[in-house]
Amino acid sequence: MNVLLNIEEQSRIPVFRQIMDQLIRLMDTGSLRPGARLPSSRRLAECLSVNRSTVYRAYQELWSLGYLESRPGSYSTVRRRPRAAAGSPDPGPGLIDWSRRATPTCEALYAAHGREEAILRRAAGKDVINFVPLSPDSRLFPMDAFRRCMNHALRHEGPALLQYGTPPGYGPLRQFIAERMRLHGVAVTAEEILITTGAQNAIERLLRLLAAPGAALACESPTYSRAMDIFRLAGARIVGVPMTGAGMDLDALEQVIRRDAPALVYTIPNFHNPTGITTDQAHRERLLAICEGHRIPLVEDGFEEEMKYFGKTVLPIKSMDQHGVVIYLGTFSKILFPGLRIGWIAADRRCIDRLAPIQKALILSGNLLDQAALHRFCRMGYYDLHINRMHRIYRRRMQTALGALKTRLTDDRIHWSEPAGGYTIWVRLQDLAAAEEEIVDRLVAHGVMVLPGSFHFHGAADGVYFRLSIAHLDEAAITEGIRRLAAGLDTLYRQSGSGDRRFTPSPIRTIPRGRPWPERSSVSSKGMT
Amino acid sequence: MNVLLNIEEQSRIPVFRQIMDQLIRLMDTGSLRPGARLPSSRRLAECLSVNRSTVYRAYQELWSLGYLESRPGSYSTVRRRPRAAAGSPDPGPGLIDWSRRATPTCEALYAAHGREEAILRRAAGKDVINFVPLSPDSRLFPMDAFRRCMNHALRHEGPALLQYGTPPGYGPLRQFIAERMRLHGVAVTAEEILITTGAQNAIERLLRLLAAPGAALACESPTYSRAMDIFRLAGARIVGVPMTGAGMDLDALEQVIRRDAPALVYTIPNFHNPTGITTDQAHRERLLAICEGHRIPLVEDGFEEEMKYFGKTVLPIKSMDQHGVVIYLGTFSKILFPGLRIGWIAADRRCIDRLAPIQKALILSGNLLDQAALHRFCRMGYYDLHINRMHRIYRRRMQTALGALKTRLTDDRIHWSEPAGGYTIWVRLQDLAAAEEEIVDRLVAHGVMVLPGSFHFHGAADGVYFRLSIAHLDEAAITEGIRRLAAGLDTLYRQSGSGDRRFTPSPIRTIPRGRPWPERSSVSSKGMT
Repeated sequence: MNVLLNIEEQSRIPVFRQIMDQLIRLMDTGSLRPGARLPSSRRLAECLSVNRSTVYRAYQELWSLGYLESRPGSYSTVRRRPRAAAGSPDPGPGLIDWSRRATPTCEALYAAHGREEAILRRAAGKDVINFVPLSPDSRLFPMDAFRRCMNHALRHEGPALLQYGTPPGYGPLRQFIAERMRLHGVAVTAEEILITTGAQNAIERLLRLLAAPGAALACESPTYSRAMDIFRLAGARIVGVPMTGAGMDLDALEQVIRRDAPALVYTIPNFHNPTGITTDQAHRERLLAICEGHRIPLVEDGFEEEMKYFGKTVLPIKSMDQHGVVIYLGTFSKILFPGLRIGWIAADRRCIDRLAPIQKALILSGNLLDQAALHRFCRMGYYDLHINRMHRIYRRRMQTALGALKTRLTDDRIHWSEPAGGYTIWVRLQDLAAAEEEIVDRLVAHGVMVLPGSFHFHGAADGVYFRLSIAHLDEAAITEGIRRLAAGLDTLYRQSGSGDRRFTPSPIRTIPRGRPWPERSSVSSKGMT
Repeated sequence: MNVLLNIEEQSRIPVFRQIMDQLIRLMDTGSLRPGARLPSSRRLAECLSVNRSTVYRAYQELWSLGYLESRPGSYSTVRRRPRAAAGSPDPGPGLIDWSRRATPTCEALYAAHGREEAILRRAAGKDVINFVPLSPDSRLFPMDAFRRCMNHALRHEGPALLQYGTPPGYGPLRQFIAERMRLHGVAVTAEEILITTGAQNAIERLLRLLAAPGAALACESPTYSRAMDIFRLAGARIVGVPMTGAGMDLDALEQVIRRDAPALVYTIPNFHNPTGITTDQAHRERLLAICEGHRIPLVEDGFEEEMKYFGKTVLPIKSMDQHGVVIYLGTFSKILFPGLRIGWIAADRRCIDRLAPIQKALILSGNLLDQAALHRFCRMGYYDLHINRMHRIYRRRMQTALGALKTRLTDDRIHWSEPAGGYTIWVRLQDLAAAEEEIVDRLVAHGVMVLPGSFHFHGAADGVYFRLSIAHLDEAAITEGIRRLAAGLDTLYRQSGSGDRRFTPSPIRTIPRGRPWPERSSVSSKGMT
């Protein structure tokens, strides 16, 4: 038989691959049917004026992919392949009902995720100024410096960095992180550092270690919404401790500890997500003393540690930790390159030693190449320069945001936090009877998008809130965004009528018991039926 | 007061950073005590002949790190820092007993990991030929090509790739993987692919979705040891289905399914780890039919799919999957660059849609930069070229290994598998009364290291086995290694005496019930006290 093939010698695609691709197309489309005999490699090579070994290589690949019946060398014939190979785009309903196969916890997460996406999608495709993302402005990334560092890592250690690594991460980066933490007053060695796939992943690793299904976990309420997602996936009971203007209510925390014996206390002491509150030295000391007294691990999420650009500085709680009670979570993601997904855990050596086998079991090792490139970047001083630049820029941006809020939002039912750094401002709308979807729709209609407050509460929110993040916006966008926000809120208040106090603005005192999630307990469920 | 600082203008370290570092050293060593007043930024700038804004910047950084008391601008004084900052290397016993705070499951993993490490360490620092690592030979990595691809990705899409990405991964790579799977007869679209942190992580994600604590999981016995680690961490009951020479015993599997209703069946149909067995078309069809009949997800681990370099090719089970029952796990790690940690899950869209929010909850997003660099590498044809080269090289290496075994291991109590590809050979030692530590020590004394078979069994092994991996060894090392192995085994058999049948070599028939792990049930334990 004759086969028409077209070889382009100038192509970057190797010739053997061109032969393969064209033969596969002929077989997939039925031009070459099962049982058809291909020309011998010698003959085809002559026809195409290519080396015989090139055709041999193509045939061998085709054979190993199951396209040819016999081994190359003799005549090869086209093999009958299962039907699926031809491509059946719609599998129909399928034999497995994934909604029932999924654990109830995962199915609830899937549903909750869908609801969140539905709200966020209300701004999709619209011309809005978006105060939702908490990702540093990628226009500020020092790309050339990083590219040089990446090249340096690849040239000097390439093969080793692209091989499996050790579970706790790239040694020199652990060393750098330890030194950096010493700058923040924390005395740790490289052996007390475990590098993770971002701080998000660090939370997951800690729950693996410390929280058996059904364990109670204490955290601020409201708190970082994605931390709660992990708590839920772990089958934990979330016990929210109310926030005061000075941070977590520590009297309430003591009650919670006595009542629920949580496996850990999770706190965000700087630029708390979402409220923006930074706790003072006295609060930190008392929180630490409480955890020491009850011998409960205190997980300090220092996700924006480096973004202290105004206000009085307070050192991490970990810096006062004489007895190994504090587990510190750090990350590079809120300063630069969140896409690298590099965070860390700094804790007692005995805790780190127990995390390493978990890390090994779950991913074998982290990505050393990116860790090495980032390490070079830090050692060359680019990290310091970048932090300095970020401080200068965000000090101005945050001042712009706070100034605009003060000028524009004159209604005294609207309150907001004045953060000492970081990216977020927490806004409370008192006396407003409107559902979050309604608020979002109204604001989107005015060309601005915010993150609804309810995302940050485990149960019902105690009021109407939203979070503004200025992380990826410049001053012009912030100013214009807040102008639109003011206009949108104005309309909302006018439409909702006055004096409806569906959400009482009283300070929060009752601490809800930790509830399993989803509501009808997944914790002890077998799940599969 | 006078401060002596030394500024090097030629240094790559920025001047403000040099000032900071030297002042920190003076403060940390006590040369500058708490309360001491620093020179004004104007005066220090004059002394050092640097710009005043440089000193201002250094002071501002020091202040934000908590080293200085007051805001820059006025006189700055040295702040009293908590004691820990001075560095206390040994925290003593600590207030928290991590061995009790850790969940029983994690503590058992930690102990098991310690035992494994202790065995593997017996070869440490000794001049051995090491048949343990299952990592592809990094001497074969096409480094220059990859570096060019990385540069291309950074230059063309840098800032976007270094930002948070979408949970299922870099779109074009998902597309490439879908096309690559079509080459293997699997009809999937990019939307049915979720990229994971290696295939290891893919297993973990699936268990999150499908296995509630206490769920039974069916897998081959023996199987991949690190998969069992994840099963254990998930609190699952592992039910091992015996292997026959043709693959998993399917009659036994049917019993297991009826008795234990496992949440999934996990199988490695190609170059099974550790036995090296590849199942045939008939076995695959029946296994699929069983899972379809019981509507149980079949997890097909295709970790060495691309390493079919001799023997007759069989297509993946996923290629016959008309009803969305098969969840396929793939990885690049056994061909090249395991350090990138890029694997994937190919499954029914409804399954992938449920995995995405889990991915988001656990790591927010994967590393897009590496995915983009690898995508470029694949699209440029380097991946095909590399696979082809790997086939040529490993075909020879495996032939060398099998040839040497045949020549050297003439004792008929020693049996081994003849794999159709991949990297591993499974060796059985019949009639040998020796503990694994003893075998390892004897072999190490002869200059060769192997992976003990017991690592691959959930309970007790049914005989004495070890695994040879030729992944990172060249032909000379393989030949010499097997010569040493033969000498070591010879000594072992002579020392152990003859005819001791402590391990009966009968075919395995009884299927152990899934046991919780660790033995005294962690599954329903609250863990925390």
